[in-house]
Amino acid sequence: MGLALADDLLGRSLHRVQREVDAAFDAILPIPADSRSRLVEAMRYAAIGGGKRVRPFLVITVAEMYGSSRSAALQAGCAIEAIHAYSLIHDDLPCMDDDHTRHGKPTVHVAYGEAIAVLAGDCLHALAFDLLTSPEVGSDPFVRSELCGALARASGHNGMAGGQVMDIMADTEVFDLRAVTRLQQLKTGALLMAAVEMGAILAKVPEEARAHLRAFARDIGLAFQIADDLLDHEGDEAKAGKALRKDAEQGKATFVSLMGPDKAREQARALSEQSVNHLASHGKEADLLRSLARFIVEREG
Amino acid sequence: MGLALADDLLGRSLHRVQREVDAAFDAILPIPADSRSRLVEAMRYAAIGGGKRVRPFLVITVAEMYGSSRSAALQAGCAIEAIHAYSLIHDDLPCMDDDHTRHGKPTVHVAYGEAIAVLAGDCLHALAFDLLTSPEVGSDPFVRSELCGALARASGHNGMAGGQVMDIMADTEVFDLRAVTRLQQLKTGALLMAAVEMGAILAKVPEEARAHLRAFARDIGLAFQIADDLLDHEGDEAKAGKALRKDAEQGKATFVSLMGPDKAREQARALSEQSVNHLASHGKEADLLRSLARFIVEREG
Repeated sequence: MGLALADDLLGRSLHRVQREVDAAFDAILPIPADSRSRLVEAMRYAAIGGGKRVRPFLVITVAEMYGSSRSAALQAGCAIEAIHAYSLIHDDLPCMDDDHTRHGKPTVHVAYGEAIAVLAGDCLHALAFDLLTSPEVGSDPFVRSELCGALARASGHNGMAGGQVMDIMADTEVFDLRAVTRLQQLKTGALLMAAVEMGAILAKVPEEARAHLRAFARDIGLAFQIADDLLDHEGDEAKAGKALRKDAEQGKATFVSLMGPDKAREQARALSEQSVNHLASHGKEADLLRSLARFIVEREG
Repeated sequence: MGLALADDLLGRSLHRVQREVDAAFDAILPIPADSRSRLVEAMRYAAIGGGKRVRPFLVITVAEMYGSSRSAALQAGCAIEAIHAYSLIHDDLPCMDDDHTRHGKPTVHVAYGEAIAVLAGDCLHALAFDLLTSPEVGSDPFVRSELCGALARASGHNGMAGGQVMDIMADTEVFDLRAVTRLQQLKTGALLMAAVEMGAILAKVPEEARAHLRAFARDIGLAFQIADDLLDHEGDEAKAGKALRKDAEQGKATFVSLMGPDKAREQARALSEQSVNHLASHGKEADLLRSLARFIVEREG
């Protein structure tokens, strides 16, 4: 979705990551010959064949920039994508956002029922840490432990899930731009930053360079979310593969409702440019990250 | 609950672990000064002040038997208890077992609403791996990584959550004793085995001794579940702190429905004795484990 706008090299790279992540989950999740078959089918339904795979792309691209092996980075990329996939399943539940369409197909609870949806999410959550501690990630236990820690902290109450709670509570609270920024830094930003951090952990990137990468990730994270709000405001449901304009219907504060669409677009582009500036000390090897920063604010889905 | 039946040393040891786990979660989960306060309150509600803490007790007891530090084992014990607590929150949801009482108080979704309950569970899940990768567990990254891997594999689709799915699907399938045993080995057994394994990982127990400990854990896991089925069949709701006799109402196959209560009690006691036999190569230092094996089948809640 929306990849038409990506430049050739980025487009090919994203497609390659998509194929690799799909193939990896297919191998990781064979369907068992007992009554758990429906559970694993639901996990596969959520994990295979949907999404732009921006998080694994970031893990792999950063790791390879600094000379780490692609197979280890792919395994870590699947771990963070498993976390992302579980969060979408749970966010779509009737007691949360009650969404019926995701990646152009029925959401997991619509297709498999609520109980299986909750448990498929839980199992993808556990799978992430299973993957990060498996031999494919490499022989250095320090790397495995750091990856687990970074992902756990980015996804829990001080990260992604904490941001989702802020989003739920936003219905009942007055939200200004600062509060929305903080919410989105947790809900979307924390996991995007973790993706870059995990690439850096795998490749043992020195602290100074890591700080630049973190700043890059923080800016694209926010740009990504503003672009998402713009898509929700004026995008095409068919291209997005999900229901749009729900935030406005619910009267939710978003970057677009608080700034207006023109100012929001301007801000997303400024953040995208700023993110690229953090890569100034890098040469051509960071071109994929630069392309991604531009793609994130111009995509259509 | 039910501790009156435990012998003095075991009773004191369990109470000590209960106090330590409560104090640790109190310190780990300060309530944030933003809209996540309700989330963290729900996490605290689920994690503090309830449950026998059998899993942390096993981690700590095994680790200390082999000379590992109590503070590291307590941290790992809180991690496995966070997984146990999240699983209870999700199992109690309306789309799952729809339970209203747990540890003698309203379940999390009754007290905080379904959305917060799902997310509090998710956050306790992530917290477990945050705790296992924190400095309190010690300086050896191999230990941290092995702890994460053991807990992830025991709690996912090939462990606890897989067992919960089998339990849900059991309503629609014919279940015999072998199928119920396999279900319970995943649903309850995997996490009890992980508790013993985590204690052994912390203390770097040699493989031969670890195999004996695993066999001990497998037997008490099954004994624990048969005792649970007996309590569900004939126990006192006030002492159990939760609704009982739901399995029979739903016509679910359990050890009691398949074997009858007398044979089930006999089987639980035989497993308890067998578990103690696996500790034959140990001296007095394993007395707490022996007492636990007896307590598990005689408890009233």
